[in-house]
Amino acid sequence: MSTPWKTDQWFTSNWNWLPEVRQNMHFPAKIRIHDVSLRDGEQQTGIAYNRADKVAIAKKLDEAGVHRIEAGMPAVSGEDEAAIKDILALGLKAEIFSFARCMPSDVKLAKECGVKGIITEIPSSEHMVKNAYAKDMDWAIKSSIDTTLAAKEAGLYTVFFTIDSTRSDLNRYMDLIEKVSTEGHMDALTVADSFGGVTPQALSVVIAKLKARFKQPIEIHCHEDFGIGVANTIAALAAGAEVAHVTVSAIGERAGNVPLEDTVMSLKMLYGVDTGVKTEKFYELSKLVQRLSGFQLPPNRPIVGDSLLYIESGVVGMFHRRCRKAAPLQYMPFLPETVGRPGVDIALGKGSGQANIEEFLERRGKTATPEQINELVARVKQLGIEKKALLTDAEFDGLLTAVLGK
Amino acid sequence: MSTPWKTDQWFTSNWNWLPEVRQNMHFPAKIRIHDVSLRDGEQQTGIAYNRADKVAIAKKLDEAGVHRIEAGMPAVSGEDEAAIKDILALGLKAEIFSFARCMPSDVKLAKECGVKGIITEIPSSEHMVKNAYAKDMDWAIKSSIDTTLAAKEAGLYTVFFTIDSTRSDLNRYMDLIEKVSTEGHMDALTVADSFGGVTPQALSVVIAKLKARFKQPIEIHCHEDFGIGVANTIAALAAGAEVAHVTVSAIGERAGNVPLEDTVMSLKMLYGVDTGVKTEKFYELSKLVQRLSGFQLPPNRPIVGDSLLYIESGVVGMFHRRCRKAAPLQYMPFLPETVGRPGVDIALGKGSGQANIEEFLERRGKTATPEQINELVARVKQLGIEKKALLTDAEFDGLLTAVLGK
Repeated sequence: MSTPWKTDQWFTSNWNWLPEVRQNMHFPAKIRIHDVSLRDGEQQTGIAYNRADKVAIAKKLDEAGVHRIEAGMPAVSGEDEAAIKDILALGLKAEIFSFARCMPSDVKLAKECGVKGIITEIPSSEHMVKNAYAKDMDWAIKSSIDTTLAAKEAGLYTVFFTIDSTRSDLNRYMDLIEKVSTEGHMDALTVADSFGGVTPQALSVVIAKLKARFKQPIEIHCHEDFGIGVANTIAALAAGAEVAHVTVSAIGERAGNVPLEDTVMSLKMLYGVDTGVKTEKFYELSKLVQRLSGFQLPPNRPIVGDSLLYIESGVVGMFHRRCRKAAPLQYMPFLPETVGRPGVDIALGKGSGQANIEEFLERRGKTATPEQINELVARVKQLGIEKKALLTDAEFDGLLTAVLGK
Repeated sequence: MSTPWKTDQWFTSNWNWLPEVRQNMHFPAKIRIHDVSLRDGEQQTGIAYNRADKVAIAKKLDEAGVHRIEAGMPAVSGEDEAAIKDILALGLKAEIFSFARCMPSDVKLAKECGVKGIITEIPSSEHMVKNAYAKDMDWAIKSSIDTTLAAKEAGLYTVFFTIDSTRSDLNRYMDLIEKVSTEGHMDALTVADSFGGVTPQALSVVIAKLKARFKQPIEIHCHEDFGIGVANTIAALAAGAEVAHVTVSAIGERAGNVPLEDTVMSLKMLYGVDTGVKTEKFYELSKLVQRLSGFQLPPNRPIVGDSLLYIESGVVGMFHRRCRKAAPLQYMPFLPETVGRPGVDIALGKGSGQANIEEFLERRGKTATPEQINELVARVKQLGIEKKALLTDAEFDGLLTAVLGK
């Protein structure tokens, strides 16, 4: 029997594979990951890459098998333009795109850089065009047509990126797309949930409608303002969208873009969709981005957080000691090596129990009576509460001397 | 016309309200939020609360209108037992629950503390019972029956918490529930996605099946291993589950539990479901938990992250300056005060543009020619790239002197 929820690398829920669950999923045959860490990712307040940083991150993204890299927006600075050219000169396997405001001059800059494709943005909601841009819809439509035609003439793969798509009236939104794709040019459409306010249920319905009306591929670009961006992205893909916009570890404007790691891992281990991206590169990729951006993830960040595999809990410590050789997937959803991480380790703190003590005793080649172990558990908990943190090895050795004698 | 997606407090997607989207949602009339920050939250490696910490957090959770607080597990330590008694002595509006292993002695401890209800846990997947607990299913069933009966006799509201529910075979899982609820006792069932491996689509189907077979309320307890815990929780509620288990800011074992903030805000602003929880308390609640746990959130954490409302970007700075009085919801999904935060501020960095400079000039009562503003933009960008961080006020003043003269 095939058990896609349980392999030698992961063990997730068989409920995901019930026929009633699977029947409504229409993932395209091929899903492409479009990484925007170097553009929208850098828009996170306080992140600034220099030219060399961008090149280093692009190389690592390519090693990880990401299909497309949005390398930046040449108009931001000369340094960004230079970085895009450097990245192109690497001859990576990943396709290199750049980002452009909806104006022909930005297309010209992109063409000069030599990118393969362009993401050209325009607000699609009337209220934003009016209030935030102080323009009208005629301006938006004309700019879109002019710019996409210029991109086509320049031989660029043209992705029409509609800012604030999800707060547009759906019928007017589709009419706008229709007009730009017929009078202008559109190789693909990006549905942008620019302020993170859509739901998976809504995207399931809307993406299906867009697929029915337009022949071009659909790209989905979500944000994490409400913490459901990964589920939104996957819902769009399951309804037929072909490209997912992500960043490494959810860096990005405000609460961030959708994390590459969570998206690709969920697709692979919960939905049975292999994007081809090399998940075993995730840990080092995330570490690189953290180092170069100066942005530190919390230790419990999904997939790549440093404390995920560091067990303080007594009951989980017991699982680990019992199962680590024969059945490590009993107490974790996937093996550390699937995301390029070293293995599990055991810690000592307030939450620890007998198993943690036994592990630390074994490592020191020591034994203790059951009473002594109980005493050690009590003292470890007490010290954990007092210092409100994990114990150091030296602190444990101190307790050992006190309880066992030297 | 009613526009639940656009109020004076938030502006999210009208697509969420399309009839085809809404028709499959079956939220119960009343949803209750069960906070596990003091139990599962504390199980995050490295977090240890003392007695006073737990009391302070419980008070603040109650101020926020959280309906139930899982105050801890008395068996962990005397300090925890004392904290639970302290919390009960406060006479909070929130109901106080404690957590118990599936053994009658833990029920006795809970009763002595005086809690209203108990969450009693047992693994429900055969493989975990066998490999991680080194027991068999007969043991699991007997323990469950004995413990839930003891809880009933003790007059406790008994929530039967099935560890690793989502990796159980569904039919066997339902048979186990049936047996415990008939031969033992169950006031409510907690479906636990202990290793974060289920999907929203699967929970929609399974929760509906459970609702059809069992009359007891269903509680949903998810984890963030794949970053989709909030969407999972909401999918379960939309299929009829009545209680959501959450923690403040997603603290918890491994990648954390489901965040209170994202769950309640999504329900309210994306689904039109008001839990009654006071979202305006979220910022101070999260800050308190961060301070007492020693766990620092990243600045771009959804809802409560410190940099969310700090605008570096030139284009967003322009939106802000244009719309802040008349239409602030153009460039953010909800007003800062809805989550108890001070307002938006503008920063200076690599991503900044003319609007940011104009804002900083205005604040200093200075003016500049368009050429000087362009020069300032260029210098701000350059310094942002060089220092790879935001500019300080002093640094900007230095640039001002250089460009404008003293």
